[in-house]
Amino acid sequence: MPRVSQDQLDARRQEILAAARACFARHGYEGATVRRLEEETGLSRGAIFHHFRDKDSLFLAVAEDDAAAMVETVARNGLVQVMRDLLARADSTETAGWLGSQLEVSRRLRTDPAFAKRWAERSQAITDATHERLRRQRDAGVLRDDVPLDVLTQFLELAYDGLVLHLAMGRPPGDLGRVLDLVEEAVRKA
Amino acid sequence: MPRVSQDQLDARRQEILAAARACFARHGYEGATVRRLEEETGLSRGAIFHHFRDKDSLFLAVAEDDAAAMVETVARNGLVQVMRDLLARADSTETAGWLGSQLEVSRRLRTDPAFAKRWAERSQAITDATHERLRRQRDAGVLRDDVPLDVLTQFLELAYDGLVLHLAMGRPPGDLGRVLDLVEEAVRKA
Repeated sequence: MPRVSQDQLDARRQEILAAARACFARHGYEGATVRRLEEETGLSRGAIFHHFRDKDSLFLAVAEDDAAAMVETVARNGLVQVMRDLLARADSTETAGWLGSQLEVSRRLRTDPAFAKRWAERSQAITDATHERLRRQRDAGVLRDDVPLDVLTQFLELAYDGLVLHLAMGRPPGDLGRVLDLVEEAVRKA
Repeated sequence: MPRVSQDQLDARRQEILAAARACFARHGYEGATVRRLEEETGLSRGAIFHHFRDKDSLFLAVAEDDAAAMVETVARNGLVQVMRDLLARADSTETAGWLGSQLEVSRRLRTDPAFAKRWAERSQAITDATHERLRRQRDAGVLRDDVPLDVLTQFLELAYDGLVLHLAMGRPPGDLGRVLDLVEEAVRKA
């Protein structure tokens, strides 16, 4: 019996993640049944759960990928740019699905402390990246220096949460581009 | 058979609304079954649905009350004050329940166009009150005048949505009081 290489395992894991991401986006967390996950990945539940302990772990792995990508963009371009990107893609089906799953996560965070704990590590990484990026901007002299970095970080996160909720409710983007200009201006040196 | 006066009908309607509000807060929209609504109001489903066509109508009537109260506070003290009040009450069970039902509403707005349409009238009233309050503040010379009122209105609503999502996820309030100072400052004349 041939041994499966680590590369093959990693590739399979990535395939499952991509299919699961599409499935969660299309059907939401609750709607993404194990049956649908099997269809979307083309694998049996046995094969899927060989790589991920359970549906929660699979969902959190997708979320971890999202968070890692977001941390990278935040570190490079800041949280405001993440918001601008989200706004630019707001019309796509993929984004709509992602936004929907964010709302489901929000609901679960209220009711499931174990899930909330695992989730918190991901959002802490984004907070840390935002804070670190602001610190560099302050060092570069472009950031206002009369307000603590923690407060500026939370201000940007409040705007991010607001954008997610606004778009997730399916409300029109309106002038949100100009609103984000205002958000950016509020943290910069006058 | 004695006629029931309009006053009695109105009083009964208010009783049902208060009990329904508590029931939705405690169990969420989905969890507030007709059975539970009967228990909470102490009335039969026949009596409840004599006053409200169905559960949706009852839920929207509660939401209409919320929106009317919010419009009044916005008109008097502005949307930032609504946020400060919400933050001050964030720990109470009642607020937690209300926040939870807001998330359920958000989810439903995505999937139920008829519900979204009825809901939109309520949120438009809040937008109008916010806009009108900002216009009066601009006339009084305390508001910045280099950004259109529409954009300032949307900026405040973005912050409000962000606060609702933040608190609804059960995240700690942190320095949100100071964040709201920043929000307020961003719309005022420098």
